[in-house]
Amino acid sequence: MDQAKPLPGYLVQRFHGWKATAYHDNKAWYRRLYESGQHPRAMVISCCDSRVHVTSIFGADEGEFFIHRNVANLVPPYNPDGEYHGTSAAVEYAVTALKVAHVVVLGHSNCGGVKGCHDMCSGHAPELLEKSSFVGRWMEILRPGYERVAHLPDEGRVAALEKEAVVVSLENLMTFPFVRTAVETDRLTLHGLWTHMGDGGLEQYVPKLGFVAV
Amino acid sequence: MDQAKPLPGYLVQRFHGWKATAYHDNKAWYRRLYESGQHPRAMVISCCDSRVHVTSIFGADEGEFFIHRNVANLVPPYNPDGEYHGTSAAVEYAVTALKVAHVVVLGHSNCGGVKGCHDMCSGHAPELLEKSSFVGRWMEILRPGYERVAHLPDEGRVAALEKEAVVVSLENLMTFPFVRTAVETDRLTLHGLWTHMGDGGLEQYVPKLGFVAV
Amino acid sequence: MDQAKPLPGYLVQRFHGWKATAYHDNKAWYRRLYESGQHPRAMVISCCDSRVHVTSIFGADEGEFFIHRNVANLVPPYNPDGEYHGTSAAVEYAVTALKVAHVVVLGHSNCGGVKGCHDMCSGHAPELLEKSSFVGRWMEILRPGYERVAHLPDEGRVAALEKEAVVVSLENLMTFPFVRTAVETDRLTLHGLWTHMGDGGLEQYVPKLGFVAV
Amino acid sequence: MDQAKPLPGYLVQRFHGWKATAYHDNKAWYRRLYESGQHPRAMVISCCDSRVHVTSIFGADEGEFFIHRNVANLVPPYNPDGEYHGTSAAVEYAVTALKVAHVVVLGHSNCGGVKGCHDMCSGHAPELLEKSSFVGRWMEILRPGYERVAHLPDEGRVAALEKEAVVVSLENLMTFPFVRTAVETDRLTLHGLWTHMGDGGLEQYVPKLGFVAV
Repeated sequence: MDQAKPLPGYLVQRFHGWKATAYHDNKAWYRRLYESGQHPRAMVISCCDSRVHVTSIFGADEGEFFIHRNVANLVPPYNPDGEYHGTSAAVEYAVTALKVAHVVVLGHSNCGGVKGCHDMCSGHAPELLEKSSFVGRWMEILRPGYERVAHLPDEGRVAALEKEAVVVSLENLMTFPFVRTAVETDRLTLHGLWTHMGDGGLEQYVPKLGFVAV
Repeated sequence: MDQAKPLPGYLVQRFHGWKATAYHDNKAWYRRLYESGQHPRAMVISCCDSRVHVTSIFGADEGEFFIHRNVANLVPPYNPDGEYHGTSAAVEYAVTALKVAHVVVLGHSNCGGVKGCHDMCSGHAPELLEKSSFVGRWMEILRPGYERVAHLPDEGRVAALEKEAVVVSLENLMTFPFVRTAVETDRLTLHGLWTHMGDGGLEQYVPKLGFVAV
Repeated sequence: MDQAKPLPGYLVQRFHGWKATAYHDNKAWYRRLYESGQHPRAMVISCCDSRVHVTSIFGADEGEFFIHRNVANLVPPYNPDGEYHGTSAAVEYAVTALKVAHVVVLGHSNCGGVKGCHDMCSGHAPELLEKSSFVGRWMEILRPGYERVAHLPDEGRVAALEKEAVVVSLENLMTFPFVRTAVETDRLTLHGLWTHMGDGGLEQYVPKLGFVAV
Repeated sequence: MDQAKPLPGYLVQRFHGWKATAYHDNKAWYRRLYESGQHPRAMVISCCDSRVHVTSIFGADEGEFFIHRNVANLVPPYNPDGEYHGTSAAVEYAVTALKVAHVVVLGHSNCGGVKGCHDMCSGHAPELLEKSSFVGRWMEILRPGYERVAHLPDEGRVAALEKEAVVVSLENLMTFPFVRTAVETDRLTLHGLWTHMGDGGLEQYVPKLGFVAV
């Protein structure tokens, strides 16, 4: 591996700043996390989008949430075919090894992945239909959601699809036998959220009602 | 989707606290992020581990890093077979759509996923070899790394494998044509890091030298 | 005192969140509590255990309960020997200064202190017998309770001892002259509770019957 | 134990309300706390005062804080004389068994115990000097603090003594060998706080500087 470069200077500087302050003042907590292992109460599945920081909006400290982030906060359906499934591996580790009590799927406004899915499914992004498009293939997970919003007027259709990304993921989570068993034996609860990053709003999915403000 | 539950009360409370303070005081910035889209300077590939907060150690603000988190911060090799590849989709989106300048792979001490890989490859975790184990199949990505550390003495072998997880991912990144092109045309740099969460240490991968303290 | 450290940042953030919401919205009530003093209706004696929040299960607001929490919710016998007695001081203040109407002793399942007492009394924790063990000496208060459950089968004996911790404390409360007088003049009632934190159960002590579901 | 009474009806009603709502919706989390034990990150030593809810101001959930509450949030000096020491037992359990990373001493405005100490030490409460006064004997722990504020003008002297209650407790904590060792090996940090319940203020103790707003 010859192409790696040293860390940019501004990140080196910030790291040293963190170490001299936050780390220095909380050394005991970091050491404890190191020595006693993690015991997170929840898994959060969130988008890679740089504007979504679940640790901010919930005032979360290191150790609280096991966080998986992928494009459009999607969970694929259960499919144990022996191939690489990063999201499924994360869910399996959280539920069976860490035994988290909650899995929270957090969607958000202005999701580029969901916008791509919308354009692809409505015939406006042929390049995403190509086999070689990882983003296109990944967003196929959300196609059943697109079917449910396709009839909506233009305005609001993409936001509705962002919320479908949460619901589809919750549905797919229930296809994993270990998730279903944990839910049915009251060892795990599932939660769906969608945040509007412009106005700081947060909505939660409530069965029968849909998304309502927290 | 009938199984979703409302958000636990303490998270509702914390969210409202965030909204009344951090959001309220920075409304202009959140609104700008919403209206102008994201322009992250780097993609970070990090572990789901609850103890690893890349936003902390780099004092990162919303909008700075496009963050993908999976078990053991792994990137699989390029494989455009038309299936779901969440990590590859995230890399593709970051490099081709967002045109980030850096991709940083951040490994860490005490990684449960790497420990599982070590046990599986050394014959101590047969359950991870089963086809139905998502964690086991996912950790196969790191098997080439295990071959490189298998000869080491017990003590330190797992930590060495944690660092191999970074190197293997960097190597695999270079198998993506759009990554290789961006690197070779000086539009993208790759960086490998490993953090010791107990003593707050940070090491970076330097070709020829290996991991050295930042 | 040179060793004190600043408050961890996430707690600072959460405090500011609380102040901007719960405090802000209830300023009048907090101000009234400040200006008119406290008038709690009950004293609750509960365990330090992080999983026991008496304010949750009784939906208690600031100002309602005067709460003493110690290891295993124990009250020692009356012993005015001029030494420091924190629990006795709390009971005295609640009953004679605040004139609470109820004293509630709240035990709970999986109590680490009671488990230690069980192990110590049954000869499996010699380190707790040492003079220097504060936990061991404190749990001696419960030894009379151990004698009453020692004959029980293994299964269920520790839970029975958790309930004895409530009964012993109620018995010891009656050895305080000011408690006995208040009870006998109908100015104070005593209550014993035990909660199972796994299934959310709550049992109350009823003379002659023992513990029955609330 | 014949004097115990059934739980007052309004508390029975509130408990059933909690069980049908907060417990019901978070059954998985309560079950996890039951099955996996507690892993609190911090011990909080707070006053019994009904107006002080540390869980509120820090948005804390069940499982986060190991909470000891006594009159005036005091820690006595280390004294392993084989007698009952409830506070010392709580500190020992938190630091040596639970290995918490932080001990936070939280003082507050309008503390009745501190007011009593002030009156006793300044000769205005002879009844608290009697051997039989548990509150008086307990507040002797704070007498060294009184000596440090006795010269202050009337106005503000009691509030200064409330803050001394925090400092004296931090000093006494350091007399416990297991606390000192944990602090000196960076496994534990101590924190002093004082809250003004009327205006919702929070101050933290900073060595050399004294109490400053958070």
